[in-house]
Amino acid sequence: MKEVKAYAAHAAEKELEPLNIKRRLPGPEDVEIEILYCGICHSDIHTARNEWGGTQYPVVPGHEIVGKVTGLGSEVTKYKEGDTVGVGCFVDSCGHCENCEEHQEQYCLNGPTATYNSPSRLDKDVITYGGYSTHIVVKEDFVLKISDKLPLNAVAPLLCAGITTYSPLRNWNVKKGDKVGVVGLGGLGHMAVKLASSMGAEVTMLSRSPEKEKDASDLGAAHFELTTNEETLKRLAGSFDLIIDTVSAQHDYNQYLALLKTNGVMVLLGVPPKPSEVQAGQLIMKRRSLVGSLVGGIKETQEMLDYCAEHGIVSEVEMINIDQINEAYERTLKSDVRYRFVIDMKSLKEE
Amino acid sequence: MKEVKAYAAHAAEKELEPLNIKRRLPGPEDVEIEILYCGICHSDIHTARNEWGGTQYPVVPGHEIVGKVTGLGSEVTKYKEGDTVGVGCFVDSCGHCENCEEHQEQYCLNGPTATYNSPSRLDKDVITYGGYSTHIVVKEDFVLKISDKLPLNAVAPLLCAGITTYSPLRNWNVKKGDKVGVVGLGGLGHMAVKLASSMGAEVTMLSRSPEKEKDASDLGAAHFELTTNEETLKRLAGSFDLIIDTVSAQHDYNQYLALLKTNGVMVLLGVPPKPSEVQAGQLIMKRRSLVGSLVGGIKETQEMLDYCAEHGIVSEVEMINIDQINEAYERTLKSDVRYRFVIDMKSLKEE
Repeated sequence: MKEVKAYAAHAAEKELEPLNIKRRLPGPEDVEIEILYCGICHSDIHTARNEWGGTQYPVVPGHEIVGKVTGLGSEVTKYKEGDTVGVGCFVDSCGHCENCEEHQEQYCLNGPTATYNSPSRLDKDVITYGGYSTHIVVKEDFVLKISDKLPLNAVAPLLCAGITTYSPLRNWNVKKGDKVGVVGLGGLGHMAVKLASSMGAEVTMLSRSPEKEKDASDLGAAHFELTTNEETLKRLAGSFDLIIDTVSAQHDYNQYLALLKTNGVMVLLGVPPKPSEVQAGQLIMKRRSLVGSLVGGIKETQEMLDYCAEHGIVSEVEMINIDQINEAYERTLKSDVRYRFVIDMKSLKEE
Repeated sequence: MKEVKAYAAHAAEKELEPLNIKRRLPGPEDVEIEILYCGICHSDIHTARNEWGGTQYPVVPGHEIVGKVTGLGSEVTKYKEGDTVGVGCFVDSCGHCENCEEHQEQYCLNGPTATYNSPSRLDKDVITYGGYSTHIVVKEDFVLKISDKLPLNAVAPLLCAGITTYSPLRNWNVKKGDKVGVVGLGGLGHMAVKLASSMGAEVTMLSRSPEKEKDASDLGAAHFELTTNEETLKRLAGSFDLIIDTVSAQHDYNQYLALLKTNGVMVLLGVPPKPSEVQAGQLIMKRRSLVGSLVGGIKETQEMLDYCAEHGIVSEVEMINIDQINEAYERTLKSDVRYRFVIDMKSLKEE
């Protein structure tokens, strides 16, 4: 085992603080990574504060990881020292269930091993520690190749926010000319706008905040519509092929379902605190679908990273040092970030 | 105009009673049909009693119609006198919107003309009258060919209950070996069991009523599971490719969503009185879909009728005379029917 620097929460109501943690030495199939950048995802905050239950303290969040390979197991074939690599929301899965066999490890029937706060499959009695750390050791098959074409700090959020929005756009076959609505302009929403418009869709930002209009347009949205306006909702009824709903606050699904065309699909990416009411008639009368989607498999994540490298797509980021993490959490909760905080991990190394 | 016998409701709280109504003489594209049999659908009752609002009295319900051609417009090419034909839930649509052009007239963007209680597109100021009548006049394009291979009285319910269950099984691509759950064993549910099992699916009846087990098995269900049992629900978690939910009483969708596999689909066919709560996590964690479906287009209805003729599939029916209609309504509301009442229209002709 090797001791490395990290930042951890020790209890739901406590701020994150420095902690030395142990990482395993690379096993035969492992890649050791020096972390350069790690994005801050809302899930990190939910977990640090035990808002979903089940947090095991101390917890080291972080699953939007970009770094350099610094160590290799004897059987690793895909990577060499110095390669730029990424790690996303999970670091292992059973490998043999029907979903793993179909490259959908995120839906592993035996449960994927999350990048943090998850019992490790490789280390007995170890709970995984995430990317708020100088190093991480991950099985080769769960490591992603990262192109050096793009600014690496802005690539980090692709590992969660990027794949979470890319996967449903591909799964429900968004193509040139499709009308796509995006609800919520935050970490996920801004990636949904960039990715959907890059695929040729005509993207409409559906927002409650007029001040977001310019940003939406800069990100690639063709239209901006205020959903607080009843007349707007009437005018937009039946007009979208797909709606990507990134909001995890409580909100009315039916308002957005009504905006879908016949056979239209509304994809939920956020989990509101309480269940939401759905009017069956909104689905039946136009054969609409209300669906959910969870990140993406490793193969699809690699495809997304390659796609983003080819199309010059990255996240909009605000860089912080590790000692600003608690302040960044508070600002994330107030949506006071454009559009993702990313930790420069040099600041932890030198701390 | 021609006066014909019918049964109508004159107000929400009144029983149905005899009424002479006027049918138009066949126009160039029209087919005049002598009605032999008409099924009783729950929608008939909702409309007769104005439970959905918008009922215009007097209303003549009935949209599961089988009869013989007795008159033809000059331009009709598909039918000749004496042909056995059917009429389902709608008798016209705009014909030029994108859904009509894709043979999905049920989703006509300008509104399909329902078989009853709908403003006619052909007759100014006329509200359509349905199948509780000796005759009906319908545009050729909305008339279905019926094979004489099957008992015609038991074919009548295929025009609504049959196509309503057939269409989602086809649209979501049910195939041999798929695991299909059916919720609710009534008019729709019994057709869902018959049709899904005829397509090679392994059908499970999901029921709250142990006494329905034998019928479910006779209809083709491979399994019968009581959803009132918590242990059963745990055991069945993640086991269905598709669930057809035929229940229009208020019920918990999440209980059934949890029974779907990854990428599984739950199809709503009934509209409960109030919206139902949906947990986003049930959709997201397994990329499940909650969808709705409304009858089927004319082309697909013909395909279903031909499929049923080929596979010997009809509805289970209980025959009544027209003067038993009010009693049949009460029994339908108590689910005291196996599984569809069908009116022998000879009884109206001779009344």
